[in-house]
Amino acid sequence: MNQPLTSPHNPAAPDWLQVPSDLNHLDPALWPGGTRRDDSGALLVAGHRCQDLLAQFGSPLYVLDEMDFRARAQGFRREFANWDVYYAGKAFLNRTVLRWVEQEGLSLDVCSGNELLVALAADFPPARIEFHGNNKSEEELGLAIDAGVGRIIADSFVELERIEALASARDVVVPILVRITTGVEAHTHQYIATAHEDQKFGFSIHSGRALEALQAASEHPHIKLMGIHSHIGSQIFDTAGFAVAARKMLGVLAEFRDLSGVQLPELNLGGGFGIAYTSADQALAPGELASQLTAIVSQACAELGLAELRLAIEPGRAICGPPGVALYTVGTIKPVVVGPELTRTYVAVDGGMSDNIRTALYRADYTASLANRCSSAEPILARVVGKHCESGDQLVRDVYLPADIVPGDILAVPGSGAYARSLASNYNHATRPAVVALREGEAQLIMRRETLDDLLNLDIDLNGR
Amino acid sequence: MNQPLTSPHNPAAPDWLQVPSDLNHLDPALWPGGTRRDDSGALLVAGHRCQDLLAQFGSPLYVLDEMDFRARAQGFRREFANWDVYYAGKAFLNRTVLRWVEQEGLSLDVCSGNELLVALAADFPPARIEFHGNNKSEEELGLAIDAGVGRIIADSFVELERIEALASARDVVVPILVRITTGVEAHTHQYIATAHEDQKFGFSIHSGRALEALQAASEHPHIKLMGIHSHIGSQIFDTAGFAVAARKMLGVLAEFRDLSGVQLPELNLGGGFGIAYTSADQALAPGELASQLTAIVSQACAELGLAELRLAIEPGRAICGPPGVALYTVGTIKPVVVGPELTRTYVAVDGGMSDNIRTALYRADYTASLANRCSSAEPILARVVGKHCESGDQLVRDVYLPADIVPGDILAVPGSGAYARSLASNYNHATRPAVVALREGEAQLIMRRETLDDLLNLDIDLNGR
Repeated sequence: MNQPLTSPHNPAAPDWLQVPSDLNHLDPALWPGGTRRDDSGALLVAGHRCQDLLAQFGSPLYVLDEMDFRARAQGFRREFANWDVYYAGKAFLNRTVLRWVEQEGLSLDVCSGNELLVALAADFPPARIEFHGNNKSEEELGLAIDAGVGRIIADSFVELERIEALASARDVVVPILVRITTGVEAHTHQYIATAHEDQKFGFSIHSGRALEALQAASEHPHIKLMGIHSHIGSQIFDTAGFAVAARKMLGVLAEFRDLSGVQLPELNLGGGFGIAYTSADQALAPGELASQLTAIVSQACAELGLAELRLAIEPGRAICGPPGVALYTVGTIKPVVVGPELTRTYVAVDGGMSDNIRTALYRADYTASLANRCSSAEPILARVVGKHCESGDQLVRDVYLPADIVPGDILAVPGSGAYARSLASNYNHATRPAVVALREGEAQLIMRRETLDDLLNLDIDLNGR
Repeated sequence: MNQPLTSPHNPAAPDWLQVPSDLNHLDPALWPGGTRRDDSGALLVAGHRCQDLLAQFGSPLYVLDEMDFRARAQGFRREFANWDVYYAGKAFLNRTVLRWVEQEGLSLDVCSGNELLVALAADFPPARIEFHGNNKSEEELGLAIDAGVGRIIADSFVELERIEALASARDVVVPILVRITTGVEAHTHQYIATAHEDQKFGFSIHSGRALEALQAASEHPHIKLMGIHSHIGSQIFDTAGFAVAARKMLGVLAEFRDLSGVQLPELNLGGGFGIAYTSADQALAPGELASQLTAIVSQACAELGLAELRLAIEPGRAICGPPGVALYTVGTIKPVVVGPELTRTYVAVDGGMSDNIRTALYRADYTASLANRCSSAEPILARVVGKHCESGDQLVRDVYLPADIVPGDILAVPGSGAYARSLASNYNHATRPAVVALREGEAQLIMRRETLDDLLNLDIDLNGR
């Protein structure tokens, strides 16, 4: 009575989801380089069997392939040779990982005082740090100035005044960029170029605030205005939106040059470079991105008569997302009739929205593979859900899994290195999973698993005293 | 140049949002009982000035009015006099609060082993605890059985087998309810009654699984089948959905009685009782809820010839939501032109999606009031946003605030007691705010503020060793 009805082409599946010809196949676009199956069919990440990792470190678990992370950082560093490449720490920030970032020659983008403090604790060179945020406190700005961060990205008029006051009091000059709202909003293959300015960040071009901000910044004696910054979105798979945004930004630089006689030397195009979460996603390689973005900027500079600029980008997810894999243990399996002759199999694992809220928050798509073994069973349409008391607690909305999946099996979810641990909660008093860095022959904790004692350490029992 | 364009009727506002005639007015439907302004115009919660609380405990801060919490618990206890009233701990779980819940005579709904352990740590009587979850591990089930929880709500066939095996090994009999999927999905004033069964919880009536589960449960010698449970949604403002769901559930009880000769004695209608987050919401009082739900069940029981049942509900948000207020300090204010002659003022505070993700996750609406003073300035359409590096980082999407709002002002957001701290994250390495319990003349920490050291305590710096 508990047998799922199976069908190779389940109409409850979304259009983009193909029935895989081999459920054991690992799409190299989705997994850390070198991920493979051993002779028993077990999934190996950096040479480690997933079931061994769970036995050693507990389930659920995030693993991060160090060499894959470094290779992606190197790819950006190499292809964007003359650019500043800032790793966007908000995607995943940890002291060990920051040392990898530093060793690979990247710079760092932080967006809170605490992110900055973690970077300083990992000996990250302050001159290679830029500091973002729409609402930096005076305390955070003072911290950044005292640390000597390379750039502060100013986001509001009141912030310009705060920086000037703090810098003046310290008798220093603070290098900044001004954050510009271009009106371009990009996501995957689509972008909107009309004045999309209904958001909290930056100074808009359309309203004239951008030029006003450059003028204000350039008049502050303790601010050194270096250039402008914009960020157009996330999970972007082509450069069309960047092309429009870059032209608009360069237009602002040209206009400011014509007004002031000064060409600002720097242009930061932000981040948002998409990664493949499923085989339906086609991510651009850093080389393609670099050549396209360079051509876009060069052409626009030539048209506007602008001298060569120092360029910068801020990849986060594109570096730390693909090296990360989340491992879960299956607990219950429930075929649910969702239509005539139509079944969706709910596969519940021992994690959920507490360790990856992206599916619930952005309706993000992921995929999953059986990690402890191969299977030649037929594919069934599955939804991987968590164990939280909420119907929106889903991890992988649509995936074909083998029909012989059973409790105790291990599922691996690729692309889990970015915005999973960094957005994790303790919902239902779930303790956040450990993060293990993997090299061939070496598996080391870089974030330890939380314990209930960690949670109770914040919880005060007044009546129990 | 930084002056907002103001307009009493801003077309960028949603239809439900009225321009308030007095921005200083506190709608008693939204705030803890007794919340008022003192002669200086400062907001008082349980007699405490918000600015004094922030000065003492730091900003941002959650405050929880103990007497208001207790009064709401008492309201449910009194109006649902013959019912079991389970406080849904997932909304906000803390040892001190659990003692209030226990003292007010309520029972407790937990949905993870850790929530159960917290309850036991607060000396909550296990017999008054029910244990929910779609994927309870054997370890969690063993813990619940050993603790002697009053009810386990069984959610799958494999779980029934697990309970039987664990109970058999311990030579005990475990009282359970079976969770039923009625096909009703309710939210605010709407509900869908057609077989909405595409979700992870329970056994569906439509597919026949519900009856099968009751039969299976009744055949297990170490399980005592007490009745059935269903949960139809959240933020529900009328009882129409409950009426449909209750009839379906009672139909299952009647069918099972006809098949087995046994009428099960218990019916648990779950939770989901809505609270007013804005003045546009009309929440039902416990008394109205009780009389309507009692009438619905009585009538259906009479029609089906069912004997009187032991009834239960699970309010969480309705008890802990309204007593909670989140306090934030304004950092930056940015008027943004969003259309011809149309401005939305972005008011950025020192918290955000890390301390309340409901706005981003569910597109939830909230309101906010200036808390440190009154204002007679004209109303401007505002959006209260956080300080995180993400454009979706919004707290209050649409609210009229006084045009003279300045950095340093304090904003109070009512309805913040439920699902704010419990879903909070450390995004951008934000440290989660403290929770302070308030009585007249007494303000005491019940959750201490996290520190960066707490975060670094989980973060392992391999290379720094």
